[in-house]
Amino acid sequence: MNGADMLCDVLLVNNVDVCFANPGTSEMHFVAALDRKPAMRCVLGLSEGVVTGAADGYARMADKPAATLLHTGPGLANGLANLHNARRARTPIINVVGDHATYHLAHDAPLTSDIESLARPMSHWVGRIADAADVRARTEEAYMEALMRRGVSTMILPANAAWGDVKPEALSPVTLPERPAISSAALSAAATALRDGKRTVIILAGRALRANALETAGRISVATGAALFSQTSDRTERGAGRVAARPIPYNVDQAIAALRQFEVAICVGGKQPVSFFAYPGKPSTMLQPDCKVIELAGHESDLAKVLDALAEEIGIRKDSPFAPNRFTQHEIAAPTGELNADSISVAVAHALPENAIICEESITSAGRLAALAPGLKPHDHIPLTGGAIGEGIPLAVGAGIACPDRKVIALQADGSGMYTIQGLWTQAREDLDVLTIVFSNRGYSILKGEMRNVGVNDFGRNARRMLEIVDPALDWCSLARGMGVEAARAESADQFTKLLNIGLSRRGPFLIEALMAG
Amino acid sequence: MNGADMLCDVLLVNNVDVCFANPGTSEMHFVAALDRKPAMRCVLGLSEGVVTGAADGYARMADKPAATLLHTGPGLANGLANLHNARRARTPIINVVGDHATYHLAHDAPLTSDIESLARPMSHWVGRIADAADVRARTEEAYMEALMRRGVSTMILPANAAWGDVKPEALSPVTLPERPAISSAALSAAATALRDGKRTVIILAGRALRANALETAGRISVATGAALFSQTSDRTERGAGRVAARPIPYNVDQAIAALRQFEVAICVGGKQPVSFFAYPGKPSTMLQPDCKVIELAGHESDLAKVLDALAEEIGIRKDSPFAPNRFTQHEIAAPTGELNADSISVAVAHALPENAIICEESITSAGRLAALAPGLKPHDHIPLTGGAIGEGIPLAVGAGIACPDRKVIALQADGSGMYTIQGLWTQAREDLDVLTIVFSNRGYSILKGEMRNVGVNDFGRNARRMLEIVDPALDWCSLARGMGVEAARAESADQFTKLLNIGLSRRGPFLIEALMAG
Repeated sequence: MNGADMLCDVLLVNNVDVCFANPGTSEMHFVAALDRKPAMRCVLGLSEGVVTGAADGYARMADKPAATLLHTGPGLANGLANLHNARRARTPIINVVGDHATYHLAHDAPLTSDIESLARPMSHWVGRIADAADVRARTEEAYMEALMRRGVSTMILPANAAWGDVKPEALSPVTLPERPAISSAALSAAATALRDGKRTVIILAGRALRANALETAGRISVATGAALFSQTSDRTERGAGRVAARPIPYNVDQAIAALRQFEVAICVGGKQPVSFFAYPGKPSTMLQPDCKVIELAGHESDLAKVLDALAEEIGIRKDSPFAPNRFTQHEIAAPTGELNADSISVAVAHALPENAIICEESITSAGRLAALAPGLKPHDHIPLTGGAIGEGIPLAVGAGIACPDRKVIALQADGSGMYTIQGLWTQAREDLDVLTIVFSNRGYSILKGEMRNVGVNDFGRNARRMLEIVDPALDWCSLARGMGVEAARAESADQFTKLLNIGLSRRGPFLIEALMAG
Repeated sequence: MNGADMLCDVLLVNNVDVCFANPGTSEMHFVAALDRKPAMRCVLGLSEGVVTGAADGYARMADKPAATLLHTGPGLANGLANLHNARRARTPIINVVGDHATYHLAHDAPLTSDIESLARPMSHWVGRIADAADVRARTEEAYMEALMRRGVSTMILPANAAWGDVKPEALSPVTLPERPAISSAALSAAATALRDGKRTVIILAGRALRANALETAGRISVATGAALFSQTSDRTERGAGRVAARPIPYNVDQAIAALRQFEVAICVGGKQPVSFFAYPGKPSTMLQPDCKVIELAGHESDLAKVLDALAEEIGIRKDSPFAPNRFTQHEIAAPTGELNADSISVAVAHALPENAIICEESITSAGRLAALAPGLKPHDHIPLTGGAIGEGIPLAVGAGIACPDRKVIALQADGSGMYTIQGLWTQAREDLDVLTIVFSNRGYSILKGEMRNVGVNDFGRNARRMLEIVDPALDWCSLARGMGVEAARAESADQFTKLLNIGLSRRGPFLIEALMAG
């Protein structure tokens, strides 16, 4: 066997059995090895943004990493934006980046580049396999780092490490160490704040937004009066019967207003919220300067356990009478009239099936749906996390591979959707049960708003040419059909609701171009 | 005025008047400034691979740089693959990458990343603007470095440097220093080799492949018997009435065979040729180990002058009787029968209009055209240079913007074309005179060949799923129409020739899906 065979075997013994791929010549021995391993599911993306975004979506829903196969520096580079999102979502991914044979690097062949420099900003761990004998150890390390850090491992595989001979060995799954212990100082500080009746906010992120952790946070909230807020994260289990935390608004002024009252902030999963962008004369952080911030635990911790410990510390047992405020299901009437951001949201809220997965890259368009979400049928919500647009369609690919029995609904802004539209082909190729809704407002609406924020209200030719996607308009149905995905256009709320029902009543990929009014 | 205004003004005074762009929030002040400068032509790309590839194509044909506008680390990352190609092509580009306000970076907001680390591998120069007062000096430096190094300058523009006030100043164009002096030692060594009757090859690259430099090289070749070979470069002026250098074959064995006889290699523009990839048991370099390599001048030099100096050194004056072997025009008959790589090439050769620009990313498909090229009507050839696929469509965008009066013909492999298919929209938006020919073989044919090279002839499910683009097939006509580009499919050589004539007889973007047999 060769190093590439060993790499596959180490992944498979650790239950990593999906590889999102776009290979090149330097990975041919790896491709040949994958071809010898039918237990590995290889999923082709027609650009690397699809590959990495799908790996992100997959791991968020499968709760285990996929591998990616990327071709040298440029192949990795094409996938970096969605690795950025995965890094911010703290999603485990194991990238395998092929490189030239080690002895070939000195010749600076055309495809040579500094892969480590490219990888580092978007990876939690970067490693280079030295030779075939190093494959097992390095692959196990990449796997362990992805799981323990909850993050992106990027492993560089030189061609001669892939084609070099290795001795077969008995492999076993990597034994993972314990997750970080809970800081008793932070726990005690948090408990004190909650007990003392300080105006406290618990800011949840990452794994603290799963249903069981939210349930515990809900009990703490009811018992202490603490507010529950959430930061944009990998995945939120939401809907009726569950506890909901309130998303911190994207708009800085609104966020500051929402958080103004709090004297103490307890962060569970990550740090205190900061403004997405800086604006002249506005602060970078959203809590008041004198708000005490307690970072109770980071993403590497078992956040459900951390919340259990906090509940216990303040004397709220699991069987305590403090029932959390679970949301009850409400019925939403189907919208009529104009098709706009709100009526699309209402239609989705009306029709949302139980246990759906909502992949969200609606950018400016689905605020109404977020407001309605806690009372809808239980579902998962996996949003854009790092702000690098072009992740919605690939996220849906990954979620569809991870959960073949669940309906995936992709809420997709048109501007960002164009970044990785190639992912529709993978949805068709893999026959994924994905319904894509394109919010077709024919522009980068968020930027039009930001232009107004910087004081420009009358756009000249250059601004219009950079912010509007017209002249010509995109025909999303034609684009989808070109990649084998059935599609239809809606121009009214009624039409949209009908198409939505069609899309939800059948299995397989379908796309609705929701042409928004005005 | 603010820093962003100053940045625009410095670009414009240096005759940089095209900005390929995909902006985000952190660049809003720059967008607003561009909107105040109607002299700047802003060209939107719907993904950054289009933006950077178009800037590459533009500079190759305009012989001056364009600016790009990219949104923070992920926006840059999306454009890196084509910057890699530009770096290998030694194309001047001035990237403007927006970043957070300097004081916001410490907060590690979601879109924060190490932009320098991302930029360095694909840039010849990387700089960060400190504040608004620094904008002028840094922009002038970025411009000068791009021109003098012939390469990629990446300049990071913090939002507060863009929005900060600066005093208006009288601006003037940057005075460029002299290009590197010719090494008299290298010149003398090259001349000695040529005079001594050693079996010598002159290997041309970069600016040595323009018509005037080729003419000089041709005179040297006729006078001394030296062979002329070329390396893949930014742009070759080729066709009838010109001197042609023979492209070094991509295949290692063929390349070694072609170069085996030479005792001396004189490299004009760059270093000795190396194998694109390493293969077990095959060498990395293509010249014989005992071949003497003389690096006469690098890309930074004025290569036409270098060749003039070499001619003079060996006593070949411009008016000498050594007429170079210029190619004469041959008529190629239109093909009939099966549509395949060769018949497509022959049809293009048959119909090629004078002064066309061929953008080539045909990968495995257009070898026959390359063989016929020296005898076709004079044209420019701008190929994929760095091996990072996904550049063909964007190159055509840039060439079309640079040369609105010339026909651009993009020879586009289907697999690579999908990487940056978004560029078709920009062709429609800007009404560019681009005829795109998609070699639709529905697979990564180069990789199928490479799989056979590593000994795999029977592909299993995983290999087929990674190397074939079928199930479903792509409908390129539907994809093109979805972006506003008229398109038609050819399935025979006759059909293809007819469509080619239609496409060549009209102005504006048009796409032919050439569905290849077998």
